Amino acid sequence: MTPTLKGPDLDDVKTAQQIIKKYANRTPIFTSKSVDKRASANIFFKCENFQKVGAFKFRGACNAVFSLSEEEARKGVATHSSGNHAQAVALAAKIRGIPAYVVMPENAPKVKVKAVKGYRAKVTFCESTLEARETTLEEVVQKTGATFIHPYDDARVIAGQGTAAIELLEDKPDLDLIITPVGGGGLLSGTSISAKAIKPNIKVIGAEPEMADDAYRSFKAGRLIPVKDPNTVADGLRTSLGQLPFSIITNNVDDIATVSEDSIIESMRFIWERMNMIIEASCAVPVAAVFDKKIEIDGKKVGIIITGGNVDLDNLPW
Amino acid sequence: MTPTLKGPDLDDVKTAQQIIKKYANRTPIFTSKSVDKRASANIFFKCENFQKVGAFKFRGACNAVFSLSEEEARKGVATHSSGNHAQAVALAAKIRGIPAYVVMPENAPKVKVKAVKGYRAKVTFCESTLEARETTLEEVVQKTGATFIHPYDDARVIAGQGTAAIELLEDKPDLDLIITPVGGGGLLSGTSISAKAIKPNIKVIGAEPEMADDAYRSFKAGRLIPVKDPNTVADGLRTSLGQLPFSIITNNVDDIATVSEDSIIESMRFIWERMNMIIEASCAVPVAAVFDKKIEIDGKKVGIIITGGNVDLDNLPW
Repeated sequence: MTPTLKGPDLDDVKTAQQIIKKYANRTPIFTSKSVDKRASANIFFKCENFQKVGAFKFRGACNAVFSLSEEEARKGVATHSSGNHAQAVALAAKIRGIPAYVVMPENAPKVKVKAVKGYRAKVTFCESTLEARETTLEEVVQKTGATFIHPYDDARVIAGQGTAAIELLEDKPDLDLIITPVGGGGLLSGTSISAKAIKPNIKVIGAEPEMADDAYRSFKAGRLIPVKDPNTVADGLRTSLGQLPFSIITNNVDDIATVSEDSIIESMRFIWERMNMIIEASCAVPVAAVFDKKIEIDGKKVGIIITGGNVDLDNLPW
Repeated sequence: MTPTLKGPDLDDVKTAQQIIKKYANRTPIFTSKSVDKRASANIFFKCENFQKVGAFKFRGACNAVFSLSEEEARKGVATHSSGNHAQAVALAAKIRGIPAYVVMPENAPKVKVKAVKGYRAKVTFCESTLEARETTLEEVVQKTGATFIHPYDDARVIAGQGTAAIELLEDKPDLDLIITPVGGGGLLSGTSISAKAIKPNIKVIGAEPEMADDAYRSFKAGRLIPVKDPNTVADGLRTSLGQLPFSIITNNVDDIATVSEDSIIESMRFIWERMNMIIEASCAVPVAAVFDKKIEIDGKKVGIIITGGNVDLDNLPW
């Protein structure tokens, strides 16, 4: 038996939607004839690469930051991340006018450090182990009284991520299924909460790199099986599935598909070339899953959440 | 005195809008806080990189192809181009169900040949001189009876290109000025016709690479001064200004600004990184002009037409 943790419900996601709509972009839905032809289906891309900070992560961070009481907020927020979540927390805190403390590994790419500092977050560097990050974060929280905002194992964050699916279904109510990438599981769990509550017969499916298939294995085994140092090009999906997302995904998600590294890179380039938009490797994981027929979608209407577009242009994977 | 040639008027552009709306995308308008901050103005990007074939050229080609009589259409259409116009003509012809003949230099990039053939156009190769292209095209037209669709020196094409500015002003009626790149002049002249007729006090300005500044020099001199083999990274702007566009631009456009190659490349990368969309070097020319303060826009509302996103990902300019 999987323990059922208290996750958000559709009302929480709708509350999040009200909270963040002043600050987050309502992102567009794009389609492509070339994609549809290759996938033998109608694909609707919810383009979170055009979200604030260039990623869906702003939704969850924004909801978490603006859900704090005045007293909590005054002391600020903290997180450890070298990715989009750090930027998302930093921007949300800047908008609310409160401090943000971000713990980053000392070998974090300079461009990411610069981006976080650009949103006026206070950066504390640490060694690049998970242990060092957690210890340093604990110290920062102790010292400042800031609230830790976890990138995915947090009900407010999950509720925020679920808002993308609400918008997607408002614009395209006749979808047969929705596919998202799965890393920590915040987006997939939030999506499943919204989509299944709004449209009980819709399918919600996760897509994951074969090289970081802990969500797939956990889902099949019915217990959390973490992954160790996965070496996938989809850097946003290297994290292991969180406890709360796992609990929600187990109850709500229909399946998880996995794809090869070559297929991720080829699908990423296909989207760049045919749709003229920049997507991260992580976003190409669901695209690869449909191109490789890992998910049964023939003739169906399929929503795919494009999670972000923050790519190092000096290190493209092709 | 500049001779006044018969160009399209707002009614012609509105007719074009009716003709193409079934086939062309109504492209979105994107904004960016980073861009606005750097430009000290509010910039609204009309994103023709998300147009069919990835470029505004589809508007003009589509209008020209669908303006033909049944009898003309039956014999097909022809053009010589190695760029977006060839793809645009090929797709428009495919949609109308008529033949397209495209003359391309034998050294044209394989990817462009493949794209044109993908739209079922019949490709005839020739030597890579302008003379060879024109002679070969003449032969094709003689043999087939196809109608030549010039990429910019054509009133129907110019009317089609003018539809982007109508949409832009429908969505953002309070613009103070509109900037477009200028190569052959089809987009700039079409834009000036729409914008000045809809809003007489709006400014319309062209932006051009210093390395291919024939439109700038022609505009200042009041006579057409062609450019020879310009070596600019903005490959879409290497063509010389056409007669009809020049005549319209002389009467309708407020100014033309020029920018350096370095500035074009840096501005192109800035848009890729901050807006997560793929734009051609040509599109970065107006962006460079506002970043470099070559155009007075402080505090103003500025429309910029992003012309296309067809880029060779294996040959990025940085």
